[in-house]
Amino acid sequence: MRQAVFLIQTNDRIGLLAEISNFFYSRNCNILQCRQYTDIRENKYFMRVAVDLNAAMTCRELESEFEALAAELKLTTYQVFHSGVRQNMAVMVSKTSHCLYDLLVHAEEGDLDCRIPLIISNHPDLEPVADRFRVPFFCLPIVNGDKAAQEARILELLEHHRIDLVVMARYMQILSDDFISRYPQRIINIHHAFLPAFQGGNPYERAWERGVKMIGATAHYATAELDEGPIIEQDVERITHEKDPDDLKQIGKDIERRVLTRAVRAHLEHRVICSGRRTIVFSR
Amino acid sequence: MRQAVFLIQTNDRIGLLAEISNFFYSRNCNILQCRQYTDIRENKYFMRVAVDLNAAMTCRELESEFEALAAELKLTTYQVFHSGVRQNMAVMVSKTSHCLYDLLVHAEEGDLDCRIPLIISNHPDLEPVADRFRVPFFCLPIVNGDKAAQEARILELLEHHRIDLVVMARYMQILSDDFISRYPQRIINIHHAFLPAFQGGNPYERAWERGVKMIGATAHYATAELDEGPIIEQDVERITHEKDPDDLKQIGKDIERRVLTRAVRAHLEHRVICSGRRTIVFSR
Amino acid sequence: MRQAVFLIQTNDRIGLLAEISNFFYSRNCNILQCRQYTDIRENKYFMRVAVDLNAAMTCRELESEFEALAAELKLTTYQVFHSGVRQNMAVMVSKTSHCLYDLLVHAEEGDLDCRIPLIISNHPDLEPVADRFRVPFFCLPIVNGDKAAQEARILELLEHHRIDLVVMARYMQILSDDFISRYPQRIINIHHAFLPAFQGGNPYERAWERGVKMIGATAHYATAELDEGPIIEQDVERITHEKDPDDLKQIGKDIERRVLTRAVRAHLEHRVICSGRRTIVFSR
Amino acid sequence: MRQAVFLIQTNDRIGLLAEISNFFYSRNCNILQCRQYTDIRENKYFMRVAVDLNAAMTCRELESEFEALAAELKLTTYQVFHSGVRQNMAVMVSKTSHCLYDLLVHAEEGDLDCRIPLIISNHPDLEPVADRFRVPFFCLPIVNGDKAAQEARILELLEHHRIDLVVMARYMQILSDDFISRYPQRIINIHHAFLPAFQGGNPYERAWERGVKMIGATAHYATAELDEGPIIEQDVERITHEKDPDDLKQIGKDIERRVLTRAVRAHLEHRVICSGRRTIVFSR
Repeated sequence: MRQAVFLIQTNDRIGLLAEISNFFYSRNCNILQCRQYTDIRENKYFMRVAVDLNAAMTCRELESEFEALAAELKLTTYQVFHSGVRQNMAVMVSKTSHCLYDLLVHAEEGDLDCRIPLIISNHPDLEPVADRFRVPFFCLPIVNGDKAAQEARILELLEHHRIDLVVMARYMQILSDDFISRYPQRIINIHHAFLPAFQGGNPYERAWERGVKMIGATAHYATAELDEGPIIEQDVERITHEKDPDDLKQIGKDIERRVLTRAVRAHLEHRVICSGRRTIVFSR
Repeated sequence: MRQAVFLIQTNDRIGLLAEISNFFYSRNCNILQCRQYTDIRENKYFMRVAVDLNAAMTCRELESEFEALAAELKLTTYQVFHSGVRQNMAVMVSKTSHCLYDLLVHAEEGDLDCRIPLIISNHPDLEPVADRFRVPFFCLPIVNGDKAAQEARILELLEHHRIDLVVMARYMQILSDDFISRYPQRIINIHHAFLPAFQGGNPYERAWERGVKMIGATAHYATAELDEGPIIEQDVERITHEKDPDDLKQIGKDIERRVLTRAVRAHLEHRVICSGRRTIVFSR
Repeated sequence: MRQAVFLIQTNDRIGLLAEISNFFYSRNCNILQCRQYTDIRENKYFMRVAVDLNAAMTCRELESEFEALAAELKLTTYQVFHSGVRQNMAVMVSKTSHCLYDLLVHAEEGDLDCRIPLIISNHPDLEPVADRFRVPFFCLPIVNGDKAAQEARILELLEHHRIDLVVMARYMQILSDDFISRYPQRIINIHHAFLPAFQGGNPYERAWERGVKMIGATAHYATAELDEGPIIEQDVERITHEKDPDDLKQIGKDIERRVLTRAVRAHLEHRVICSGRRTIVFSR
Repeated sequence: MRQAVFLIQTNDRIGLLAEISNFFYSRNCNILQCRQYTDIRENKYFMRVAVDLNAAMTCRELESEFEALAAELKLTTYQVFHSGVRQNMAVMVSKTSHCLYDLLVHAEEGDLDCRIPLIISNHPDLEPVADRFRVPFFCLPIVNGDKAAQEARILELLEHHRIDLVVMARYMQILSDDFISRYPQRIINIHHAFLPAFQGGNPYERAWERGVKMIGATAHYATAELDEGPIIEQDVERITHEKDPDDLKQIGKDIERRVLTRAVRAHLEHRVICSGRRTIVFSR
């Protein structure tokens, strides 16, 4: 079954749902799922439409006809994704393997619809993990503090492998603004705290010192401001006074892995739209 | 702002969303929220549309025009609700007050959009609670085992007060099939277990004996089969081996009250459609 | 059954559990529950012992003998609480009733073991709520900006009613350092955010702007630094992009009430020990 | 640091805590953690004591002296475990890999303290997974319906590898009573439902039909009665009407893996005592 997903973002006005659903109906495309959200405060309209393509029409034809509709309706922006086109995901790691494993296992079990053509790290430690899943591993340390050179090499690899999504699975370096600007809303980072609490380093240690009763993790799109990007997914777990920072780290691993995997899944399934610092995450 | 909510249930076919959204658009009614769900296994389509009524059209006019559309589209069934018409809710209780309090407090704080014209009980114990909130309290015990007579009296009261929704807030009697059939999908019961586990009596005692690690509560529409009605809402809480049945009862009170109140809210906001033994509960 | 609870805090060293449990055993006092926690990082030992007093010994006798043991063991500090002595709790509110209701209802249902001899507010709005539960209500606005005078009047009332615990149930004023120092670790405040995120004002608005995917509430002891006191209890709820700040406020009400009530219960049951900015909260 | 854990189960009487803690104190063994639980309904006492062994005493000496104490105190039963003795865990699987992966990854990351000398399956499908982690894989199908022969072969392997714990990680066969009786309270099974709801086959399909609003998973010790063994751990996740049985299966995978891994961890850390159909699971 050929399917396509349309992600639409525009100013709200009456009739959008009718005109867009008509468009597909008149072309005999069955709407499989349609989700809308109106942000009344900012008068914005967001929409995700999944359609079943009828046999008589090519993707390209549908897209070009939709382009005409978009112009007519003055849609601010939209994206179209076709089923059958698997996305390429690069994973960046440093030394801890828990998030990487969770991504690899979910991908292998068919719960993340993507290819993983490469894993990139600034340390050699996780090469054996990559080997197990037969994923090429590139160890690219920062040599003599020349981060620009390292990033250039990474960007080259990403381009070469036609990467659609970069996942920072506990990659302990801060990417440069330039790097991030090459992949807008296509780099997902996991922060090991419930943002905006404990931005920056050592969140588990600081959570222990503050005496919080729950700890959490946050997956967000990377932006130029550290830990300030649009949040895709968060989760928490209850802790007691008995847990010391090492316990928090261990408990946190399970939170981090599920939060990151869920965020990646939402992105891969074309369910996320960014609107300023906020994300619209349509449910499956 | 005058609003109306349409709850629609029909067989699935292509174009429903387009035709229905067109209907409202062509009448200049802004769609405030539109939720759809297609049950592929049973080929059913469910829809909730909230619209802003334009000034030039009365509710009655809109309804009668929609009736024509419904006939044309062969909709299986639909309901229309108008804003500004507050529903009347009767609460039935026995001796425990926690659910009753939660309903009364949420209603008073504006978090449940309804009037509560009466509270009915088979025991006098909770009259002081009713008094506090100035709600008439009717104590209707079953005399000489004549349940039919008691139920007749209750039905009379419900009719007299034009009751739209009956909430069994830990009313410890089983209603007759006849009683239930008078208020189809309009009687909500709270069962103090995570159904289908621990149907019937003494669920906390049985949960303790089984050694479960979580206990729960379930709000469902009452049907002729005890504890078998369509589930609207459930929730659970983690327990440890240290909790004895009395502790479970106390912990359970907090689960019961929030589950019942959430289910009642979903019903009052016209977000629930029954489909056989299952419910479609659209999110707010 | 006469019971006593001992809350002990001291430097850790070998044999504390043996010596303290021996003390009770040799006096024929059955230990009903004993919880210990060793903070290895700071070499501190915390203990809560609940004992059944044998018939032959008065509370006073037991206490005085324990005093001798404490001196011998060089315990840093300890407290003794006797069953049958109900604590007096004052509730301070402003205009929103949800937390107040939850405390009143739980107290009435026997789930909070305390007396509530008075409710204090800087606004008259909630007097009807107090009336319903027949609790004296004192409206003490800040007149001509003279907060010191208002606080003096409140302190007088607290003293007069021999208040053990002050609960700020959405009291929208900041208490002076002097006021707080009179009730060290005996003033519980509810903050409507998941601290340390969104300290200060308008947390729901700021949570919406930041686009978080969960909101929370935090109950803590009030200290001189605003929102920096030792945390007793926290909880969160998942939200979606569809919730605007008003929705967050409504969802938050249910989080706030349960977090505050749980924290108050833990305090009333003598299950909380403060250690710097952290709390040890023993489970029931 | 040499440590030992004592798991004790006996009838409750006054003085147990004092006498047992004295025993360790008088031998200069520091108590690292001590947890007790008294089941008042059945007058039973349960205790877990973790001690740091002083340099001057061998494990064997301590054990033999404790044996004398146990006789004196008439302890019903107790077990001693020594640090530094890693347990051997066998994993039994059929065709689905999610639970197996979670166990292997957690073991490798040091979050499960055990060796995994072998994986046993009635199907060849998961051999590649075992290979990745270099764990010997034994494919032992049931040939000609001769289950007894297959189980005999499995038991032989378990014995040969001195297996301490058998984990049924979605092994889709029912073990014979005889097999189970060889490993009492040492076989952990994961059931893909929130027991006692949906015992037996096809729980996700049945959960969908019943229209529950949460699904769960249960890890329990295997006993002769199917799905009736003592529960170690349970968890749930919220679902909506939109999820069909295949979705539930996918969501359930994440619940199953974390529930099973947590239960296995509790067992490996000697935190579980069985008491009839119930388990005492001491927190870490």
